[in-house]
Amino acid sequence: MGAPGGKCTIAVDTMGSDLGPTEFIRGLLYATEELDLDCNFTLVGKGRLIERLLKVRKSSIDPARINIHHASEVVGMDEKPIQALRKKKDSSMSQAIEQLRDGKADAVVSCGNTGALMAGGTLRLRPLDGVDRPALGIIIPSKRKPFVLIDVGANPESTALNLVQNAVLGANYAKAALGCASPRVALLTIGTEEGKGNSLINATHTDLQKIHGKVINYVGPIEGFQLFDGDVDVVVCDGFVGNIVLKSSEALFGFIGATIKEELVRNPKRILGAALSKSAFRDMKVRLSPDQHAGAPLLGLKGNILKSHGSSNYIAIANALRIAREVVMHDMIDSIGSDINQVSDLI
Amino acid sequence: MGAPGGKCTIAVDTMGSDLGPTEFIRGLLYATEELDLDCNFTLVGKGRLIERLLKVRKSSIDPARINIHHASEVVGMDEKPIQALRKKKDSSMSQAIEQLRDGKADAVVSCGNTGALMAGGTLRLRPLDGVDRPALGIIIPSKRKPFVLIDVGANPESTALNLVQNAVLGANYAKAALGCASPRVALLTIGTEEGKGNSLINATHTDLQKIHGKVINYVGPIEGFQLFDGDVDVVVCDGFVGNIVLKSSEALFGFIGATIKEELVRNPKRILGAALSKSAFRDMKVRLSPDQHAGAPLLGLKGNILKSHGSSNYIAIANALRIAREVVMHDMIDSIGSDINQVSDLI
Repeated sequence: MGAPGGKCTIAVDTMGSDLGPTEFIRGLLYATEELDLDCNFTLVGKGRLIERLLKVRKSSIDPARINIHHASEVVGMDEKPIQALRKKKDSSMSQAIEQLRDGKADAVVSCGNTGALMAGGTLRLRPLDGVDRPALGIIIPSKRKPFVLIDVGANPESTALNLVQNAVLGANYAKAALGCASPRVALLTIGTEEGKGNSLINATHTDLQKIHGKVINYVGPIEGFQLFDGDVDVVVCDGFVGNIVLKSSEALFGFIGATIKEELVRNPKRILGAALSKSAFRDMKVRLSPDQHAGAPLLGLKGNILKSHGSSNYIAIANALRIAREVVMHDMIDSIGSDINQVSDLI
Repeated sequence: MGAPGGKCTIAVDTMGSDLGPTEFIRGLLYATEELDLDCNFTLVGKGRLIERLLKVRKSSIDPARINIHHASEVVGMDEKPIQALRKKKDSSMSQAIEQLRDGKADAVVSCGNTGALMAGGTLRLRPLDGVDRPALGIIIPSKRKPFVLIDVGANPESTALNLVQNAVLGANYAKAALGCASPRVALLTIGTEEGKGNSLINATHTDLQKIHGKVINYVGPIEGFQLFDGDVDVVVCDGFVGNIVLKSSEALFGFIGATIKEELVRNPKRILGAALSKSAFRDMKVRLSPDQHAGAPLLGLKGNILKSHGSSNYIAIANALRIAREVVMHDMIDSIGSDINQVSDLI
């Protein structure tokens, strides 16, 4: 593989997203032109279409940095993961993962079917030695600074070992993607007094205390009401809880936005006021938007696989590519491997 | 007990709230004067203080409807539940629960220490026959109409039986408090395809299908992103998940509000706009405020115990009293008892 030192290569599944390959190419150009992303790219998907899109969009990327890898099939958003992987060997997602497995790329970025990407990543790349179950980490904005929530859905049935490993995975991701030197790691629970929560949380808390100061910087349990305070860099939870928190938060954000909109058009005075303060809402949306931190890596595998939201726009795609480069340049996988080894000696 | 038909009596723990007994008395007067609440009240707490507050506030309530029950102690918000119950036999909370247990009241409303109230309710009133663990239900606003989320923290370690019973408890609460004739009950999960979620959810889903159409109207699993759509009347989950969803939602609401405020004062044009549309934000806050549905009952006990938020204002307190009256008048406990019996015949 190319990194570190040299340039890294990102294999891009250009076909899987809701907005189609056009948005992906736009994101690619935004990443290189606006974010100065210095990588090589293997664009996987319908070859002639990709070529045409690059031409239409007047790509400014040095052609030597781009390799087009044709794949004739696409995994649909509603396909069953394992079936899709078995049947569609020549899908853009499968082919992108193969590039990574064969050492021809350092990371994969896809907006496609999450289940298929997780299954494909886990089956074809395999978990790192000692990692029991991979976990999906995501960066979320808060009052002070963004934090990593892990797991948001890869493993909905966690043991204490899984949660401890999530803590290690999340801390490494926060180092690479958020630039935290010693990420503050917290455990999501209900009631922070000793013995509250449930037996899984209590067992995990005990184990996290054992590795505190040695592998991670564990600051203890936090409750739901503290989630957006920004006092910690990593929040650890089970994939069932994390997925529900993530999705219900997105839903609530939409619900509040829709309610404000309804109220703001109720009478002419409000409409005028809303027009004058319009830019405030735009800026708020940018501040709270997930687009700046769009790549959610499936952590714990022998390769970097990043999932971006199915409906990612070009800014989200560009940021997913940027984060992919960060994790490669930080040697995140080696670092995870060594931390996981240390954990198994301690608990 | 007085209800139904006759007047019901609510035992009110006037002391436990963050805002003190003054706010409770204000809430009581608001309930009788503005919401026309037709009940008798047993006001439990420091007797002379309550008398003085009623006088100062110029209570318009017929004195025959008010009984003051002196209690010399108060359970603090940070006290350990079981210890507080053991040590403070003459606390306003304990005494209010005794009123209920001894048949002198039909419901208890308290803003005090949640843990102590749950422990006190469970130990002194006991669960209904067949109920394995009581659950805390709460009413939450959504795009279309409010719904019941259950459990939000009473039982953080649920079995499938507990979740099925939560469905029954929640459906009965929706009937009494929201006036739904046949509440649509959903199960909160991740990924709604068959077999997704986790083993607890899958086992619960199977059991809920068995009681569908007989005891409850089960409409199937829903995901986090559907939570605020308002398509269902009851959302069933484990107390660990429910508490985190509830508290993180409250936190996100505060975070979004704070971000909008920050953006709206950034320049004079925005400040003017915000001033013109100020009433829109006030109305939005009222629409999304939990004050209209403030009493969260601990369901599954042999008596009606309702918890209102520690920092409840007088409107929230008045609504908690209103909801207490609703559940009494609907004979909710009898109805739960008969449904729980039916469930044990079916699964």
